[in-house]
Amino acid sequence: MMVLITYDVNTTTEAGRKRLRRVAKQCTDYGQRVQNSVFECLVDPAQFAQLRHKLEKIIDVEQDSLRYYFLGKNWRNRVEHVGVKHGFDPEDSLIL
Amino acid sequence: MMVLITYDVNTTTEAGRKRLRRVAKQCTDYGQRVQNSVFECLVDPAQFAQLRHKLEKIIDVEQDSLRYYFLGKNWRNRVEHVGVKHGFDPEDSLIL
Repeated sequence: MMVLITYDVNTTTEAGRKRLRRVAKQCTDYGQRVQNSVFECLVDPAQFAQLRHKLEKIIDVEQDSLRYYFLGKNWRNRVEHVGVKHGFDPEDSLIL
Repeated sequence: MMVLITYDVNTTTEAGRKRLRRVAKQCTDYGQRVQNSVFECLVDPAQFAQLRHKLEKIIDVEQDSLRYYFLGKNWRNRVEHVGVKHGFDPEDSLIL
């Protein structure tokens, strides 16, 4: 199934920036980064359960948030992109 | 229809930060901010056409990107949120 994952992590502290890197790293292991804080993950239910468990252990629920969007079988028809497409590396920096 | 809009704007320059504020402002006029660069917009096709026209005039397609996700009729069942829920103001700053 295709799950879109978006996240907001409070990066005003070093601990926050570390959480952000860890969230991005986990998502990279399961999916494709399409924007800075947006991943598309084609996963089976077991993989998704694993991923969300990991992410929810990393984030600080008082400061950060995760949103999951279950795009269903027709996900390809549900997405449209405009503008630049970056390659992203797992260490969270842009490759331009 | 429910359209999820996510964006990445290159904010390394003042012009970029201005584009970011303008994109956020337009999205605020049409929908609900759910994360820093993520909006859920319940719009009819004419409103969506208007919104995307405005957004695509604002962004720099060489540096920024927009993604539209058409969530369909069952959009409520497609979304799950974990963690903090911020109120966002139209001027792009967090209200904690």
